[in-house]
Amino acid sequence: MVGYSNLKVIINKETKNFQSIWWNEKGIINMIDQRKLPFSFEIFEASNLKQTCFAIKEMVVRGAPLIGVTAAFGLQQVVNTGIIENFLQLEKIVKNASNELSKTRPTAVDLFNTLNRIESILDSSISVSENIEQIKATVESIAKETLEECKGIGDIGNQLIPEKCTIMTICNAGALATIDFGTALAPIRKANEVGKEITVYVNETRPRIQGGRLTAWELHNEGINHYINADGAAGHLISQGKIDMVIVGADRIVSNGDFANKIGTYTLSVLCKEHEIPFYVAAPRSTFDLKTTSGKDVIIEERSGEEIRTAMSVDAINETKAKRRIIHHPFSQNINPAFDITPAKNITGIITPTKILKQPLEKSIRQFFE
Amino acid sequence: MVGYSNLKVIINKETKNFQSIWWNEKGIINMIDQRKLPFSFEIFEASNLKQTCFAIKEMVVRGAPLIGVTAAFGLQQVVNTGIIENFLQLEKIVKNASNELSKTRPTAVDLFNTLNRIESILDSSISVSENIEQIKATVESIAKETLEECKGIGDIGNQLIPEKCTIMTICNAGALATIDFGTALAPIRKANEVGKEITVYVNETRPRIQGGRLTAWELHNEGINHYINADGAAGHLISQGKIDMVIVGADRIVSNGDFANKIGTYTLSVLCKEHEIPFYVAAPRSTFDLKTTSGKDVIIEERSGEEIRTAMSVDAINETKAKRRIIHHPFSQNINPAFDITPAKNITGIITPTKILKQPLEKSIRQFFE
Repeated sequence: MVGYSNLKVIINKETKNFQSIWWNEKGIINMIDQRKLPFSFEIFEASNLKQTCFAIKEMVVRGAPLIGVTAAFGLQQVVNTGIIENFLQLEKIVKNASNELSKTRPTAVDLFNTLNRIESILDSSISVSENIEQIKATVESIAKETLEECKGIGDIGNQLIPEKCTIMTICNAGALATIDFGTALAPIRKANEVGKEITVYVNETRPRIQGGRLTAWELHNEGINHYINADGAAGHLISQGKIDMVIVGADRIVSNGDFANKIGTYTLSVLCKEHEIPFYVAAPRSTFDLKTTSGKDVIIEERSGEEIRTAMSVDAINETKAKRRIIHHPFSQNINPAFDITPAKNITGIITPTKILKQPLEKSIRQFFE
Repeated sequence: MVGYSNLKVIINKETKNFQSIWWNEKGIINMIDQRKLPFSFEIFEASNLKQTCFAIKEMVVRGAPLIGVTAAFGLQQVVNTGIIENFLQLEKIVKNASNELSKTRPTAVDLFNTLNRIESILDSSISVSENIEQIKATVESIAKETLEECKGIGDIGNQLIPEKCTIMTICNAGALATIDFGTALAPIRKANEVGKEITVYVNETRPRIQGGRLTAWELHNEGINHYINADGAAGHLISQGKIDMVIVGADRIVSNGDFANKIGTYTLSVLCKEHEIPFYVAAPRSTFDLKTTSGKDVIIEERSGEEIRTAMSVDAINETKAKRRIIHHPFSQNINPAFDITPAKNITGIITPTKILKQPLEKSIRQFFE
């Protein structure tokens, strides 16, 4: 794995550096268990495909780029295991695994882009072991590119941030959503690193509270000044002139510039338009879906109503065992769309690893991939 | 107290009728303890002014009209107690109590309107006992008017609701926010009562979850079809065409038509404007503040960050002891504005007890009070 790591984790007052996913010395996939943060820092070990699929589906890992990398690791995992006798067997193993992985979560396109990329290198004209080497090399490239791209997003996005700036974000588009650095948080990290005076308003992001749990934890570890607000307070904060810009991540950007992201993102885009605040999306190449032409065609994952009815909580600051507990009238129905679609027209620009894509986005995206 | 009661409460599968506040046989103010709903149905007894102030400040009772009625009961409580020897003593007792009550919460104007109304009837030309009788009669009038007005809002608002309608609301503007029937929920109750096919989308309303706890509980008790959604999902639901209209309550409507209401309301108004969905506010007369000319001049209560960091929860459906538990990174700062301001221009109409006030609202409000 690539050497640098920037995800600072404070454990018992000591700072350590981690990435959100890695292979351990036994060839098992290790991941920071994001269901348990910030209450407890635990490593989830996926030693087989079933566990890797579980990790994506149950959100041990989440965030579009990280879902993509985890899926890549999952495909490497199945070819690492056991003896594969011929190409047909290899192909079957990879396609079956890809099929299982593709069923875990529907919205983040990085998952499908990664699976397609690895499937497409299968080559019946070379040996099984050469194929496996190529898969490993491709998985390593995917991880390396994800890291490099996030660094690039940080550098490019930082150019948009003035010396003193208050930025609002939603969900977690940080190191935890990628391998390291993040997408929406990468420019914030970079701006902080170069000494700019940054304040971040973090929408808590119900129901799974990735803002209040994960983004706040990352920002705290980095020493970046931040406030957590209720999702409903975003409009008030923006209308009061407290926010200079909004930067969010993405789960899927389609060819006309529409994009899917965590539920609540669309609302932020409408509020930014109303108040003429810049609204930026930050994403690596793997988050683009050029085959889909409109946000209307993106499948929005509907997750369990149980996530709405409950919230992960602990009884005390030092308690490490968070539990899902009931916070609502328990006999009510719930509706839980996990993502929403923001139309291209509401976007000021897309922060990519190499440049800012500006309006008209359809044209800029086409040129970017040419 | 006025005879009718419509707040259905299901306790152990048996339906009883309650109002949100009443005098018990010993002359003590009884209130449904709204901090504990829906997990436990408990009566809070305020036997002195300090307890009544506590009940408002700590949100045993909440909702602008109910805050007003509770304050009225509080003033009656102080003149009920002990022997008052002369007018000056009476005046001092009432003004001191009024001063204490006025410090409990700053945004809902019903509180101040009620206190002013009762203070203004003090009359040095009549006896102390005649003054006390007048206070009691006025308090009774305030309660009766609140009830009648909510019924009126139900009848008037129902005229806006088609035979089949999906309505979104936020916070709790129901029977629990008034004495009975509610403001925003009164038209919904009425529409349901007359057999219309109603579905309600309830924004859970972080941080105190009055939507998910209180509105959902009321709608469940009434048998009205409803879904609880994350506050961040409102934009998605509206953009998908799922919502026919939004009806909200108000904490203070000023003379130009701007109004304060629960944090998140402003965002809903912007989303409704974006999607050309009707956005209605429902309020009794006591919620109007004709002395304030613009929403900019309304004091927005900033409540403790602890409310953001935590959520009331129970471990199981049948558990009755809800506790505030930590749901965020505990070392982050929080910002917790309890209300926001929606500008008059975003309002389709104000549902009052006797008519719908339409644009231009400044003129309609002036005429309404002439």
